[in-house]
Amino acid sequence: VDAPIHTDALVVGAGPTGLFQAFQLGLLDIRCHLVDSLSAVGGQCVALYPDKPIYDIPAVPVCTGRELTQRLLQQTEPFQPTFHLAQQVSTVAPLGGAANEGGFDVTTSAGTRFVARTIFIAGGVGSFMPRQLSLDGMARFARNQLFYTGDALPCAAGAHVVVMGDDDAALDYALSLADATADRAASVTLMHRRDAFTAAPATVDRMRAACAAGRMRFVAGQVIGFEHTADRLTHLTLSGPDGHATSLPTDLVVVLWGLAPKLGPIADWGLQLARKQVVVDTEKFETSAPRIFAVGDVNTYPGKKKLILCGFHEATLAAYAAAAYVFPDRTVQVQYTTTSTRLHKLLGLATQQ
Amino acid sequence: VDAPIHTDALVVGAGPTGLFQAFQLGLLDIRCHLVDSLSAVGGQCVALYPDKPIYDIPAVPVCTGRELTQRLLQQTEPFQPTFHLAQQVSTVAPLGGAANEGGFDVTTSAGTRFVARTIFIAGGVGSFMPRQLSLDGMARFARNQLFYTGDALPCAAGAHVVVMGDDDAALDYALSLADATADRAASVTLMHRRDAFTAAPATVDRMRAACAAGRMRFVAGQVIGFEHTADRLTHLTLSGPDGHATSLPTDLVVVLWGLAPKLGPIADWGLQLARKQVVVDTEKFETSAPRIFAVGDVNTYPGKKKLILCGFHEATLAAYAAAAYVFPDRTVQVQYTTTSTRLHKLLGLATQQ
Repeated sequence: VDAPIHTDALVVGAGPTGLFQAFQLGLLDIRCHLVDSLSAVGGQCVALYPDKPIYDIPAVPVCTGRELTQRLLQQTEPFQPTFHLAQQVSTVAPLGGAANEGGFDVTTSAGTRFVARTIFIAGGVGSFMPRQLSLDGMARFARNQLFYTGDALPCAAGAHVVVMGDDDAALDYALSLADATADRAASVTLMHRRDAFTAAPATVDRMRAACAAGRMRFVAGQVIGFEHTADRLTHLTLSGPDGHATSLPTDLVVVLWGLAPKLGPIADWGLQLARKQVVVDTEKFETSAPRIFAVGDVNTYPGKKKLILCGFHEATLAAYAAAAYVFPDRTVQVQYTTTSTRLHKLLGLATQQ
Repeated sequence: VDAPIHTDALVVGAGPTGLFQAFQLGLLDIRCHLVDSLSAVGGQCVALYPDKPIYDIPAVPVCTGRELTQRLLQQTEPFQPTFHLAQQVSTVAPLGGAANEGGFDVTTSAGTRFVARTIFIAGGVGSFMPRQLSLDGMARFARNQLFYTGDALPCAAGAHVVVMGDDDAALDYALSLADATADRAASVTLMHRRDAFTAAPATVDRMRAACAAGRMRFVAGQVIGFEHTADRLTHLTLSGPDGHATSLPTDLVVVLWGLAPKLGPIADWGLQLARKQVVVDTEKFETSAPRIFAVGDVNTYPGKKKLILCGFHEATLAAYAAAAYVFPDRTVQVQYTTTSTRLHKLLGLATQQ
């Protein structure tokens, strides 16, 4: 761990709300660092629907998630925020003071360390984590015989492989094993709870053809148990649609159920939560911990709607509240970007009449 | 007065917040009518700074007030709101029910009448009204011998005219009288409380030249009284910088002090106010009167900042709250414009995958 980065503001999450948080902080002359678990800025908008049009950003009749991110990055440009990507904030320790006046010591999964005077959780619906097989005792096989969406997938040579899922990713992976000419698997079983798929029809047709040709098979059912030796998984126990249990020799389990949002380590920061959302007030969008704010889809309050434009408002009010902490001796008043020479200077604009 | 227009929603004010209110109502399948005292949509943004750049609309790094309005109008287009311009809402009468279930009977200064199930006050800082001379008894001469910014100005032939103000509008008007070749005024006096002007230096020079040439004069001072006959103003009493009072023969008083925002008739609707702002909650942005919402610069709540982007958030939450009134039997949930085929249909888009 290097020497900590001292910052007035640390923004956790670099989606649209986190980016606009950096802009509003900048207008108040507060520079910030941003941390995001993804390897690119833009959050969900870029990770999940980069090319889908969005119609309800105010005064932007239509834009894609990628365009929205580019526009927000451009707007934030004058304030040159520093991005720390592909890492999660793992620990947050208050440095003292009944109201956290001492700020926070923050570390990330990549070993980056911050001493931050204020924190803004702009974590969206959370970090995207693979949907997991929930079966007591299975976790011990993870990354050895059990793999999830996002994992580097193992060599299947000679192995009895069970692939779970019903989308293109699952079927394509099963087919890639079934069609392999070298390093062939001993067997390839696609498993889904019923004989219906969200994968593209052409992909489903290819899968059925591979099954008909005996290169793989499809089993409708759910995993209800497993057998193992001292250190190896040997069989999965399946329950079919008729409730009948069967045992399937298994060396590798590849669960391709996609990603689901998880609040992640934020859940352990000691903040008041309600239904996995961070509770905030509507004046400052501050959490139960002074100087920690939460904005965007991660927070909750009466009337909350998970809309990007609401995150923009929340980030703005949170920035003003933080300015009162960062500049305790200054009265922070609203200034207008149309008229304020102070804001023009901060925005790097030539002085205007 | 014609037969009333029945509407689910009446939006009072067609500035940026009012326009976005119409959009959010449209997404919830609620059509609306908008009333504005100005003769064009866009509110302050268009009336006061149409060509000045704005930098803090989220995801719009820079746009002018006029461009912002055009963008919002374009966004609202699919829902075809009806505009009623150049008229103020003058009366609002609840039609019954302890929680205004009967809706409201609304009339405007132009005689338009509505029966509205919900009302959204998006009145900005209020209607822009001329700054007035505050002198007991003067009001009786209004539009006869006393005129304000925005009034059609009178014929000054043969009259002793006093022009009050220090900006280009005031000096230009005084000069137009002083330089007239036909229908000349008997005398032209420019009055301002001190010998310093906000008008352009060239205009001030022209004014001083006209004074030096005897075509008009400038008096530093304030009006502290007046003389009159039964029905006519005859003299203004001025107090000069030295406190000395003088009497000035006066037939016409033209006060060009510009416009100031006034809450106007909204102040008489019986809503809870705080410092001339309409008090709302932060869950629904509803006023003390059920089914009347207030959004944008006109409202107040803890943390309130008078920023356009905050108005967008407020309008959105108010729209959801209104939907619960308009569709009491339907559960109104957030849908996303990226994915909802229902919203795509409302937006008039071709059905998407």
